[in-house]
Amino acid sequence: MTFMRALVFDAYGTLFDVHSVVNLCEEIWPGKGVQLSQLWRAKQLEYSWLRSLMRRYEDFAHVTAAALGHACAALGLALDEARRLRLLQAYRELSTFPEVHHALATLKASKIRLAILSNGSPGMLRPLVAHAGLAGRIGIVLSVDPRKTYKPSPVVYRIAVERLRVPKSAIGFVSSNCWDACGAKAFGFRTFWINRAGAPVDALGVAPDHVIRGLDELPELIQVPVS
Amino acid sequence: MTFMRALVFDAYGTLFDVHSVVNLCEEIWPGKGVQLSQLWRAKQLEYSWLRSLMRRYEDFAHVTAAALGHACAALGLALDEARRLRLLQAYRELSTFPEVHHALATLKASKIRLAILSNGSPGMLRPLVAHAGLAGRIGIVLSVDPRKTYKPSPVVYRIAVERLRVPKSAIGFVSSNCWDACGAKAFGFRTFWINRAGAPVDALGVAPDHVIRGLDELPELIQVPVS
Repeated sequence: MTFMRALVFDAYGTLFDVHSVVNLCEEIWPGKGVQLSQLWRAKQLEYSWLRSLMRRYEDFAHVTAAALGHACAALGLALDEARRLRLLQAYRELSTFPEVHHALATLKASKIRLAILSNGSPGMLRPLVAHAGLAGRIGIVLSVDPRKTYKPSPVVYRIAVERLRVPKSAIGFVSSNCWDACGAKAFGFRTFWINRAGAPVDALGVAPDHVIRGLDELPELIQVPVS
Repeated sequence: MTFMRALVFDAYGTLFDVHSVVNLCEEIWPGKGVQLSQLWRAKQLEYSWLRSLMRRYEDFAHVTAAALGHACAALGLALDEARRLRLLQAYRELSTFPEVHHALATLKASKIRLAILSNGSPGMLRPLVAHAGLAGRIGIVLSVDPRKTYKPSPVVYRIAVERLRVPKSAIGFVSSNCWDACGAKAFGFRTFWINRAGAPVDALGVAPDHVIRGLDELPELIQVPVS
């Protein structure tokens, strides 16, 4: 058991399934849906890291659109304006993973504070959280945007400490992106890696504190101090 | 024609074919050579970016070994110590691309200064350059290592300006990694992207000045000022 005063969740890939756009990709380009959605996601992350290192930040809506354009060009798929708008809109209406709602309700009942800390720009996160009906479950939605850099920069994780006013040792950070859990661990959070795919841990010199299969394992793993 | 006083080359993927380890991978794990060498390379780059952002630099030999370990684990390939050492040794004996020697000899005869600027640690670059017989062609081999961060940080590209004592506008930077050419362009070099695979340009807000198919196109594209 670990005493935690707040749990901070990554959004894309953790609460929201980024590959749920695969259905729309597949509808537009039959037989290419999986490949396109995977390359789109890979390029989106790559561009976020590269722009951070280049000190050429643009917000995640921009990066996401640029990654889509590159992925389509690399796969030889014709992306007209109508398709582009449909696919980017789908990114604002991603499905949550099946266990998310119930697990968040259980955690909320335990009085632990819940927040999202995401690469997403505020303009992407608002409709995403609202569409999924999570606004009543997670009241605090934090974006990297004011700091003009992306995860896993420590500058980003510090946002949660400052906004929640909780010491980092009492914050649990939950991500299904192993590199994000490692970055959060390097910063000083207690970290929970949701390893849905059974992947090996990333070899980045720091390892997540806990490896779980889904959010439903969280309530048993954490203990909230009586305030 | 562009007046250039120095040409700075990326090493891995530009002068040296990182996928030439595919043969050894294939020998050890028949049928998995291409997949392993591609994942190894992808993870090597990813870890270099992530460690830079996390401010947890380890040198490229460390990152390369870590990436190999992860790639083998992800593909379910048993990596014992003997295999690990053979594969890492192969990384110090990479082949050059076919046109490299002739193109560098032509450029050297034109009196332009030639250098390498690489993510590689000095201990990796020395045997690599010596094994390929390039030591007489490129006298200046610069590593990111003293700055403890990786490309495409501008901190890294500045090393070449300081060591060559040439203004950045008179330095041509050559890379087959599009993101590296974009990073160098953002810094202020004139950039040449060697697009051997016919890939689309990365959508990072800056584009390489020249797109070429191999080093053999360089002598015609540059003009060296008479000193």
